[in-house]
Amino acid sequence: MLKVLKFGGTSVANLEKIKNVSKIISKQRDEGHDIIAVVSAMSGETNKLLKYAHKLSKKPKKNELDMLLSAGERITSSLLSIVLNEHNYKTISMSGRIAGIVTDDKHTNARIKSIDVKNLKNEIKNGNIIIVAGFQGITYNTNRVSTLGRGGSDLSAVAIAGAIKADLCELYTDVDGIYTTDPRIEPKAKKLNKISYDEMLELASSGAKVLQNRSVEMAKKLNVNLISRSSFTPDVEGTLITKEENIMEKPVVSGIAVDKDQVRVGMFKVSDKPGIAASIFSSLANEDINVDMIVQTVGVDGKTDLDFTIPTNDFEKCKNVMEKFVKDTQKIDYNEFICKISIVGVGMKSHTGVASKAFSTLAQEGINIRIISTSEIKISMIVEEKYAELAVRALHEAYNLDK
Amino acid sequence: MLKVLKFGGTSVANLEKIKNVSKIISKQRDEGHDIIAVVSAMSGETNKLLKYAHKLSKKPKKNELDMLLSAGERITSSLLSIVLNEHNYKTISMSGRIAGIVTDDKHTNARIKSIDVKNLKNEIKNGNIIIVAGFQGITYNTNRVSTLGRGGSDLSAVAIAGAIKADLCELYTDVDGIYTTDPRIEPKAKKLNKISYDEMLELASSGAKVLQNRSVEMAKKLNVNLISRSSFTPDVEGTLITKEENIMEKPVVSGIAVDKDQVRVGMFKVSDKPGIAASIFSSLANEDINVDMIVQTVGVDGKTDLDFTIPTNDFEKCKNVMEKFVKDTQKIDYNEFICKISIVGVGMKSHTGVASKAFSTLAQEGINIRIISTSEIKISMIVEEKYAELAVRALHEAYNLDK
Repeated sequence: MLKVLKFGGTSVANLEKIKNVSKIISKQRDEGHDIIAVVSAMSGETNKLLKYAHKLSKKPKKNELDMLLSAGERITSSLLSIVLNEHNYKTISMSGRIAGIVTDDKHTNARIKSIDVKNLKNEIKNGNIIIVAGFQGITYNTNRVSTLGRGGSDLSAVAIAGAIKADLCELYTDVDGIYTTDPRIEPKAKKLNKISYDEMLELASSGAKVLQNRSVEMAKKLNVNLISRSSFTPDVEGTLITKEENIMEKPVVSGIAVDKDQVRVGMFKVSDKPGIAASIFSSLANEDINVDMIVQTVGVDGKTDLDFTIPTNDFEKCKNVMEKFVKDTQKIDYNEFICKISIVGVGMKSHTGVASKAFSTLAQEGINIRIISTSEIKISMIVEEKYAELAVRALHEAYNLDK
Repeated sequence: MLKVLKFGGTSVANLEKIKNVSKIISKQRDEGHDIIAVVSAMSGETNKLLKYAHKLSKKPKKNELDMLLSAGERITSSLLSIVLNEHNYKTISMSGRIAGIVTDDKHTNARIKSIDVKNLKNEIKNGNIIIVAGFQGITYNTNRVSTLGRGGSDLSAVAIAGAIKADLCELYTDVDGIYTTDPRIEPKAKKLNKISYDEMLELASSGAKVLQNRSVEMAKKLNVNLISRSSFTPDVEGTLITKEENIMEKPVVSGIAVDKDQVRVGMFKVSDKPGIAASIFSSLANEDINVDMIVQTVGVDGKTDLDFTIPTNDFEKCKNVMEKFVKDTQKIDYNEFICKISIVGVGMKSHTGVASKAFSTLAQEGINIRIISTSEIKISMIVEEKYAELAVRALHEAYNLDK
């Protein structure tokens, strides 16, 4: 098989861990696979460099930040190459440039435009294990180093796997797969063997932090079979994230996610001027505030109550935006002490009663649901934050996820 | 003027020192000069990375060492660019690749083959101060990062200055110029305003450590006017190293250097087999041992005594080579406690009596000269190491260098 293996910052945090990663790679090599490894910077390294930059400038230029930050992955890639050499494996390290990764010119948050796999293919043919510096490419127009933003090394790995048509892309972190829910909340949580891209996307955007949406979206688009697994327990098989057709037995519910980083904004008795809701949401969008769930209730007096949620990160920005709408409503109130519980599963499409079971389960525990929103494969509910763990455990049991 | 300024590792050792360098650059910019700055890695950084590599492998592959080590200069170049931006100077950082530096494929000790100044010229035209990561280029054949070995950033600077026909190349270190002799030995030593390439080369190879021969040789070849000065006292003018024709008043003696890292090898009564000396010196050359001074004395019995000096670094290697010649001589003896005193000056060419003054000065102090060798602009003498400082001070006074 041709495999792309990606190792995150915690997996290469120091020389001992880099040696550990070299063992994972050499074992796979011994099993006969062709390997392209993609590596992050040693954890802490990127933050150290960022701190330097911010000590020198209040607003460092982004193309210079990219020149600076890209050094970290180059260091890891050569060190990993050196330790594999020492054990007589043929290797070659590559910067993003040499690996052929071309991006747009949005420095520090660039998007991959294309990958020229010529060098990668040649070196695979030469029998080399290739170690690619993740998180980086070069801009298509200025030919300068660019970086891909948060989760950038995952993106490098998925994009390379897609471009070179690898059989598998294994993303190694410090977590050994995707669980039915957060095991710190519910110790009976089970690791999933397989999950579809869409379920993974819904779980990730609902608070499961193992994988980032951008890389799962890209994997879906490029049809890359992803595996989420841990470099600290490499003998444990991870979770395969693949297209729905590849999953024979589709569970009604695959997992339950919880997201506490949400604020509920309530507007009471909004005046019935036409277009007022549109005006509110476009003002929020202009400030890049990601509105998640929205509920509108029309009262008998023709006035409406409007409830919506935003990420806690955007709370201050949101309050500023809302000031200009104070006159249009009787009262605006903000509640930080809420959370979003999401139930995700492709089987929902063909099963009824999933939502009603959720509502009755929470009701039995005396938990009020403030907002509900549903998609084809997801039900999300806003409840008071203090009920978060109780709600997760009750739902986990109700859907038999511990079996 | 178009200037290339080079800042060594101690000049950019930490963020405060990088800020200091940015002030030197911005001051020169304010005076109207176009600036290309070439920077080394923050001191300690390269050694840290090397230590990592050697912890992972007994003999790290050289192309991977280059990938690893080249990260250090990239970091400095972006940090320096960022701090200059913060003070509203337009800047752009460049890796060796982008600066157009192409080398042979001798990784870790590459030689510059050519420089494509296209990007450099464009960015000067765009009004940018350019910050180039020194010490690195790319190989002409494999397109991989290469590094230039010891003194590599000086070489980058001189080569760029030559290729782009800069008016000046200023090499900033922690020493403010070239002195008539080491001021730690003779506090009356004077800083030279000007010195010719050839004198500088003789001084450098005779123990003066400020500049490396490779970069002075390149400056001479490319006709680059070099200035040696300090980033810690930027108001002090340094020493101009230039071609002899540019120096109007040629001093008979410009400086006195001392080199204690020498071992004298004495072979007594070498048998008069033809070709024995040739055989000894070619055996030493095969081991890359740099034989410096040689004296041969033929005795009345037809047997010869052979004395020569080698660098202390090569002492062990030399002893191994000499084993096979033990049978050809009555005795081989090694003396580590010697030093080489060199008197350098272009004026010697046209003045007589320079050597005899040296011999009589040392004789007055009761210092025996063991070996003498002379070139057109240099007289070198081997004396006992314990006399090193005394000899330097006596000669410094004899040639009126403190005046």
